[in-house]
Amino acid sequence: MEVQIAAAKTNKYAVTESGDTLEVVERPNGGVSVVLADGQTSGRGAKAISMLVVRKVISLLAEGVRDGAAARAASDSLFTDKQGKVSSTLNIISVDLHTGTVVVTRNNPVAFFVARGEQIDCIYTDSSPIGISRSIRPVISEIPVEPGLSIVIYTDGLVHAGERVGQPMDICTTLKAMLEDQDPSPQAIADALLAEAVRLDDGRPSDDISVVVLRVMKRKGDDVRRMMVRLPILAGA
Amino acid sequence: MEVQIAAAKTNKYAVTESGDTLEVVERPNGGVSVVLADGQTSGRGAKAISMLVVRKVISLLAEGVRDGAAARAASDSLFTDKQGKVSSTLNIISVDLHTGTVVVTRNNPVAFFVARGEQIDCIYTDSSPIGISRSIRPVISEIPVEPGLSIVIYTDGLVHAGERVGQPMDICTTLKAMLEDQDPSPQAIADALLAEAVRLDDGRPSDDISVVVLRVMKRKGDDVRRMMVRLPILAGA
Repeated sequence: MEVQIAAAKTNKYAVTESGDTLEVVERPNGGVSVVLADGQTSGRGAKAISMLVVRKVISLLAEGVRDGAAARAASDSLFTDKQGKVSSTLNIISVDLHTGTVVVTRNNPVAFFVARGEQIDCIYTDSSPIGISRSIRPVISEIPVEPGLSIVIYTDGLVHAGERVGQPMDICTTLKAMLEDQDPSPQAIADALLAEAVRLDDGRPSDDISVVVLRVMKRKGDDVRRMMVRLPILAGA
Repeated sequence: MEVQIAAAKTNKYAVTESGDTLEVVERPNGGVSVVLADGQTSGRGAKAISMLVVRKVISLLAEGVRDGAAARAASDSLFTDKQGKVSSTLNIISVDLHTGTVVVTRNNPVAFFVARGEQIDCIYTDSSPIGISRSIRPVISEIPVEPGLSIVIYTDGLVHAGERVGQPMDICTTLKAMLEDQDPSPQAIADALLAEAVRLDDGRPSDDISVVVLRVMKRKGDDVRRMMVRLPILAGA
């Protein structure tokens, strides 16, 4: 088996800085974690918040702290720093090679999707953003790593796409159409979801949008770990 | 323009854990940094060292500390922690959108390559690994971001490939052959260099090998940032 993770990320229209922060880090006992945060509001202020949250989480994960504890710590830390006045959403997806599971830790009112083959589940369990009170808890889902598993997380920009023009995004349908294709890559799925959202917003995203797709595939070829990053240099940035 | 960064990484033969650590992080003032460390020896001990070094560097970069200062701090920290008995190599490549440059910070005796179009320069400037004495300094190169620029850094496993069988790796020739092709992706270059090294070691790498390739390309298409990670699940891991 192999795990492939892909992300696609765009800014709110006419804002040079995304308020979303996304980092991928190696886990000290094997595997990787993806950490995604969306700070309240947009632009520089939101970016500072989401970076703070993601940094806190990745430094704890690097010390071997469990994901749930890292999410609670990030919440307490943000609450203390901003006196409960600023919130952030937080999603962590970890591939844990020890337990053979994917752990999804979520402090985000928006749902996430789990697909096994063409069976798609939308996980809506109530979940609060972090930083707004003491004792915020994440919702944690543990899912066995098996071929055909796909997990999709995203920030709320994806859900709200098209609302301005009365054409809300239907993530499940877009995802279903993609998964019916022959074994799409996670990058193809992330790109398709983001492209659909941007299209519904008439090419001018009304919020920052980040989409992360994890897929477990059959092994193709070698034992090489790979990573690829594409960074467009925007005019004025 | 757009910047693309790709990495390919494999373990020493019959060792489940790579002693190399590689992380990509977003810079607080825009852009990204790639941090690559190779801890002394191999396996778990080396991994602990290289993770320590990379964590130190990324946490400092996240606070806005300059790359050179972060490298010095990582060296002092490792020196203090291990009383100068353990060394690690360290390479940082940063794309700084403010200055429009790529900054290469190097504490690694092995060279790195800079190519502009088909002109390839091998940068050999003397450089010491970190952690072995006080007052270790990195060698810093600042290179303007311009289309056609390619930068290749790697750990010493790439250089030593094939030495066991008296067929040492010629990185420059392999790189030259790749760059003569029509606009190869950085992933294609990293994969080709790694594949050549593994071939020279008869399919059994005699050390951990990591290769990172950065390329500045003409813009193709949208403003979307992308990231892709592939994690093969090895038997026994």
